[in-house]
Amino acid sequence: MIDVGIIGTGFIGPAHIEALRRLGNINVVAVCDVSQEAAQAQATQLNVTHAYSDVAEFLRHPGLQAVHNCTPNHLHAAINRQILLAGKHVFSEKPLCMTLDEAHELETLARQSGVVHGVSFVYRQYAMVQQAASMLRDGQIGRLFSAQGSYLQDWMLEETDYNWRVEADKGGPSRAVADIGSHWCDTIQFVTGRKIVAVMADLGTVWPTRKASLAGHSTFSTAQEEQHYEDKKVTTEDLGFILFRFDDGSKGCFSVSQVAAGRKNRLSLEVSGSSAALAWDQEIPQQLWVGHRHQANQILTDDPSLLSPSVSSRARFPGGHIEGWPDAFRAMMQQFYQAVENGEMPPPGEETFATFHDGAQVMAIIDAILRSHQQQRWVNIHA
Amino acid sequence: MIDVGIIGTGFIGPAHIEALRRLGNINVVAVCDVSQEAAQAQATQLNVTHAYSDVAEFLRHPGLQAVHNCTPNHLHAAINRQILLAGKHVFSEKPLCMTLDEAHELETLARQSGVVHGVSFVYRQYAMVQQAASMLRDGQIGRLFSAQGSYLQDWMLEETDYNWRVEADKGGPSRAVADIGSHWCDTIQFVTGRKIVAVMADLGTVWPTRKASLAGHSTFSTAQEEQHYEDKKVTTEDLGFILFRFDDGSKGCFSVSQVAAGRKNRLSLEVSGSSAALAWDQEIPQQLWVGHRHQANQILTDDPSLLSPSVSSRARFPGGHIEGWPDAFRAMMQQFYQAVENGEMPPPGEETFATFHDGAQVMAIIDAILRSHQQQRWVNIHA
Amino acid sequence: MIDVGIIGTGFIGPAHIEALRRLGNINVVAVCDVSQEAAQAQATQLNVTHAYSDVAEFLRHPGLQAVHNCTPNHLHAAINRQILLAGKHVFSEKPLCMTLDEAHELETLARQSGVVHGVSFVYRQYAMVQQAASMLRDGQIGRLFSAQGSYLQDWMLEETDYNWRVEADKGGPSRAVADIGSHWCDTIQFVTGRKIVAVMADLGTVWPTRKASLAGHSTFSTAQEEQHYEDKKVTTEDLGFILFRFDDGSKGCFSVSQVAAGRKNRLSLEVSGSSAALAWDQEIPQQLWVGHRHQANQILTDDPSLLSPSVSSRARFPGGHIEGWPDAFRAMMQQFYQAVENGEMPPPGEETFATFHDGAQVMAIIDAILRSHQQQRWVNIHA
Amino acid sequence: MIDVGIIGTGFIGPAHIEALRRLGNINVVAVCDVSQEAAQAQATQLNVTHAYSDVAEFLRHPGLQAVHNCTPNHLHAAINRQILLAGKHVFSEKPLCMTLDEAHELETLARQSGVVHGVSFVYRQYAMVQQAASMLRDGQIGRLFSAQGSYLQDWMLEETDYNWRVEADKGGPSRAVADIGSHWCDTIQFVTGRKIVAVMADLGTVWPTRKASLAGHSTFSTAQEEQHYEDKKVTTEDLGFILFRFDDGSKGCFSVSQVAAGRKNRLSLEVSGSSAALAWDQEIPQQLWVGHRHQANQILTDDPSLLSPSVSSRARFPGGHIEGWPDAFRAMMQQFYQAVENGEMPPPGEETFATFHDGAQVMAIIDAILRSHQQQRWVNIHA
Repeated sequence: MIDVGIIGTGFIGPAHIEALRRLGNINVVAVCDVSQEAAQAQATQLNVTHAYSDVAEFLRHPGLQAVHNCTPNHLHAAINRQILLAGKHVFSEKPLCMTLDEAHELETLARQSGVVHGVSFVYRQYAMVQQAASMLRDGQIGRLFSAQGSYLQDWMLEETDYNWRVEADKGGPSRAVADIGSHWCDTIQFVTGRKIVAVMADLGTVWPTRKASLAGHSTFSTAQEEQHYEDKKVTTEDLGFILFRFDDGSKGCFSVSQVAAGRKNRLSLEVSGSSAALAWDQEIPQQLWVGHRHQANQILTDDPSLLSPSVSSRARFPGGHIEGWPDAFRAMMQQFYQAVENGEMPPPGEETFATFHDGAQVMAIIDAILRSHQQQRWVNIHA
Repeated sequence: MIDVGIIGTGFIGPAHIEALRRLGNINVVAVCDVSQEAAQAQATQLNVTHAYSDVAEFLRHPGLQAVHNCTPNHLHAAINRQILLAGKHVFSEKPLCMTLDEAHELETLARQSGVVHGVSFVYRQYAMVQQAASMLRDGQIGRLFSAQGSYLQDWMLEETDYNWRVEADKGGPSRAVADIGSHWCDTIQFVTGRKIVAVMADLGTVWPTRKASLAGHSTFSTAQEEQHYEDKKVTTEDLGFILFRFDDGSKGCFSVSQVAAGRKNRLSLEVSGSSAALAWDQEIPQQLWVGHRHQANQILTDDPSLLSPSVSSRARFPGGHIEGWPDAFRAMMQQFYQAVENGEMPPPGEETFATFHDGAQVMAIIDAILRSHQQQRWVNIHA
Repeated sequence: MIDVGIIGTGFIGPAHIEALRRLGNINVVAVCDVSQEAAQAQATQLNVTHAYSDVAEFLRHPGLQAVHNCTPNHLHAAINRQILLAGKHVFSEKPLCMTLDEAHELETLARQSGVVHGVSFVYRQYAMVQQAASMLRDGQIGRLFSAQGSYLQDWMLEETDYNWRVEADKGGPSRAVADIGSHWCDTIQFVTGRKIVAVMADLGTVWPTRKASLAGHSTFSTAQEEQHYEDKKVTTEDLGFILFRFDDGSKGCFSVSQVAAGRKNRLSLEVSGSSAALAWDQEIPQQLWVGHRHQANQILTDDPSLLSPSVSSRARFPGGHIEGWPDAFRAMMQQFYQAVENGEMPPPGEETFATFHDGAQVMAIIDAILRSHQQQRWVNIHA
Repeated sequence: MIDVGIIGTGFIGPAHIEALRRLGNINVVAVCDVSQEAAQAQATQLNVTHAYSDVAEFLRHPGLQAVHNCTPNHLHAAINRQILLAGKHVFSEKPLCMTLDEAHELETLARQSGVVHGVSFVYRQYAMVQQAASMLRDGQIGRLFSAQGSYLQDWMLEETDYNWRVEADKGGPSRAVADIGSHWCDTIQFVTGRKIVAVMADLGTVWPTRKASLAGHSTFSTAQEEQHYEDKKVTTEDLGFILFRFDDGSKGCFSVSQVAAGRKNRLSLEVSGSSAALAWDQEIPQQLWVGHRHQANQILTDDPSLLSPSVSSRARFPGGHIEGWPDAFRAMMQQFYQAVENGEMPPPGEETFATFHDGAQVMAIIDAILRSHQQQRWVNIHA
């Protein structure tokens, strides 16, 4: 059994804990939160034995082997640094941090520390995304021609949708691109095995001012009662359209939006090659569309007997027993803890989960997208 | 924490264990299997502390509160009886048993024993199935006119597909109807809140003789190497078509098949009423189709903010974070263990999981279907 | 050019005329309707030269070669007889007539008259239905195991939906089965190449009394203004569920409903065989689902380069240029007029459109379905 | 009856003729083609009375009122000019011409001539595209935020796919953008009621050299026999990715590709506004997706009773009777000939079909896209 601790017990912390418990070989031994009271309440609620409110003390918990950083974005960098300096394996919620400099620092620190380090890019862990990547690797789509897609949500659709992510000092200078564009970039790079090396972006803010509820605000509140609002200036983007080029010269585009009515969490992608094409939609994750020129198109499903041999164990149930987001999340944890059990990172190129290196590389893309938009020109991304 | 034990550690036992561990308040303390060696190996593999090969001894494990019966079908009745007589809460894999007499006996025993008793009818636990049922209860589809659907699979498509379920003495006198028709009946009764009171069936066996591999056989094997086979006579049905009537006079039909190429686990249903209709397909479980006469049809997804208030907690993540079969399985366990925490069954009519009563009632339908087919006439089901 | 006349210029008559004009080699020279005034008005509107109100006179129009019977159901038999006796090629809207005796008489008369005779079973004329039939003929689905499907509409959903089809003396003793079940039977028999030889039916009338508007009634009226209604007893069925057996021993079921909210004209079918399965939905007619056991399922579209050689000319445009119901209707006319050009029926077994024989055979199925429902038992259909 | 002539009787000419004949008030009186022999053969085949090989002579055909220009792209400008100078109503296949200067000249000439002038942008004529436009006009999606989509085909996927469109001197300097991007731009501008005023493009040629069959070449040939090829340099683009801005400040992106395996003619678009979003896919043209934040998403189908009052006549059959590409083509002709019957263009802003003005405006977008790609910067489009 591996002893694990969780810092941050808001929405995503408990999702980590549940996924870890599914693995069967993890003991979640401690949680850490802003106050001892809050931490203890959550520990009780979640059936975790120990509660801390001081990160340093938490990191000294006897036998602690790995730590999950589930804090708000603006704390990621400092706490990731602290975990690394304590010599613990670290699994960080995304983004790794808020600036490119921090990203480079953390990546270097992680490499030097010798621990196992992971970032929560979960979408590459779906069985059908793994399948897509394996088909590209195996040459089943031929020479890559292009890639495209989008990541669309609607939770910021209305003027009264407001939360801390809107504020650049708490959420970072980019919102839609950093929050969901980062996932799209990680997923498409994983599927194609290519790196994005140049971008040309046009971003937009549809509500230059939003109305923040004075009574506090919950993202999914739909109450129509009379509310009092404060006008807040918005400096982060609601949507964006991005042209990009891969390192092999193939190209594409993607879009992000948090104001796309009816789209809840729709990460979609299509890659086309000289032999076939693949399309995937995260809202129907059990299906992979395979496009052909000279035969009928196919709908591949997460049936282990139909997947590539290297991927079939990713579908854990017989065909037709759909696995979803929690299962992709579980798979991510499983891959990370296989490395933890080995006591070290897999050799370069054989990582089976997103690392701090991946987190930093995606941060460089986001940084380039912001600069491209500001300067209205193509911007290169340096490795 | 609740101490739980599992009898049977084949395919489905570990799925129970993983689902239980997600709940956070369950200790899986012991497993039991046919030999001490096998049980110990599985216990080690699954990180369970105690292993047994004798059911009676296992049932005396100190502090054991609830037992899951994950054994093969022909052992269900005897072991369910043993668990009940030991006074433990019992969760049985389906079917409850193999004959209608056994079903009545077990139902009575369960009621008398005062324990919490559940049966693994998992499909009613999907958020969208719960939503469908709530919409019918709330009158959103109006007066029920009809219901129809099917449960189609293809794992028995070929002559060389053979396993113990084909043999009536091991799997019971019905195969397709008992294995998957039972799920369809439970689900449609749950959604409509009606009971099936009469059936008219026509069953079929497409391979009267199947070829059993002499080298042993795995369901999902696809190897094409030379094999040696033994001809086996098949007495159980591969497919069936069933007309039925509900207790309110509304009617419908459904079909089952284990030889429907391309359909992996396709339980689908459509219910029509005087105001609207609903359709659901287990292979895209995150969507519920809502049909209208005077407005556009809708695709409702498992977004908590879009579901009925009584159901919205069943979608545990924001919209677009698809939950699948393992999540429905988890939900079933959660509902069962809420009753276990209360120490008793919910009041009649308020059960949130399928009970031994439901198991026996579905057994009565299967029994009637078989008799209808044999006698080529409508057969009534008595409560 | 072939000179053609149309009897009946309501909704469907003009659809016939438009389809005929697409062929390029048809002159619609005359129409006939209940009064000279009505006929002349329609002739003017439709740019047809001659108008008649007397069928006998119309049939004597110089050079008239073929006649389309587009009258209401209860006139079909008498007018078909009149056309045949006049020695004209005849294309009849379905149903051929209203009783099985009439059907046999008309079939015999048609055969004896030596003219070309067709019935408007249009659904078999879709490219993808042709493709399905060719795949069955060519053995691509293997041995036929089963067939199932439904034909669902919602235009009779509400109590105030009323028209002449409800009345048995005007529309015939069967409504849903005769109107849409007949199409399903023709289509499934065409796809499989099998004949239905036995049926077991359960029909239902969800509104035993309907409210007929005293102000007259249009099927698609949605006005909510105050209306005055008369209660009318309904003796024809709104829905039905039917088990059936084919002449090769394979079996299946289908359902029909005119009270299925949200389904507008949803004829769907699925046929399963030992090698593959096919599914088709008339509301997405451009796609044919092909189900496989050992490879991904396929979505075949009406791209000529992807269809069977014998069918590819049925897709008249490059892939992605969707053809719909009017194109299937046009194809039906094209097939009929190829025979008219030849001056005689194709040899038995080589007909490329539904004939009076097919019309009579489907009438026999409907007749058997009604008797099965009345007698609550299986009823055989004699060839 | 209106007397109409067709110049060019290749693939698309006969499609024009068939669509015109459906209207019932059009006489196709003459065709014109490169040689008298070819013209006469086609006239016979198509049942057209007169055949010409000289355009000037053809234009003097007695009573000729309107002319369809169905010639290859590089002849469009000259022949459109000739038709206009002859004072005939003109319907031109797209593109209007091959350069922006020609486009401005033709637009001016058309306006001055006083005839009715139309361009074959057919996709805006689908009922569901009309419905989308009406919903935007009526404010049902609120303030427009963004638009995106693509137009994907696969008929140029392989190195051996070669035809005259590849050669800049015959097909024009742009291929994918001009051929299919032009359709996308017209459709999105029609749906949104906005004009594209700036573009930023990145184009690509995946096969810098293609192999042209020495034996001649048919687009849809799939024969595998030994062939002899000649290498041809390709200067026109296979695919492209384009950022754009509308005149109201909203923005978006689209992509085009003729090398996207499995996509046959997939023009798709999604427009998002402050209240709702709409998505449409030309390969399932009967459905319009309507996205909502606070209610279930909808699938609107081409049922006249469900469409906006101003659009419902565009669905000519009851719900579920799917209309396709030929019906959109017919609708385009119907709109054009309503103006011809009136003898003049509709007032500006009330045109119901694409005009030479629209053709010229789309040409300006294509021109800007090419310059943007060459210069790697945003390019404005001047009205």
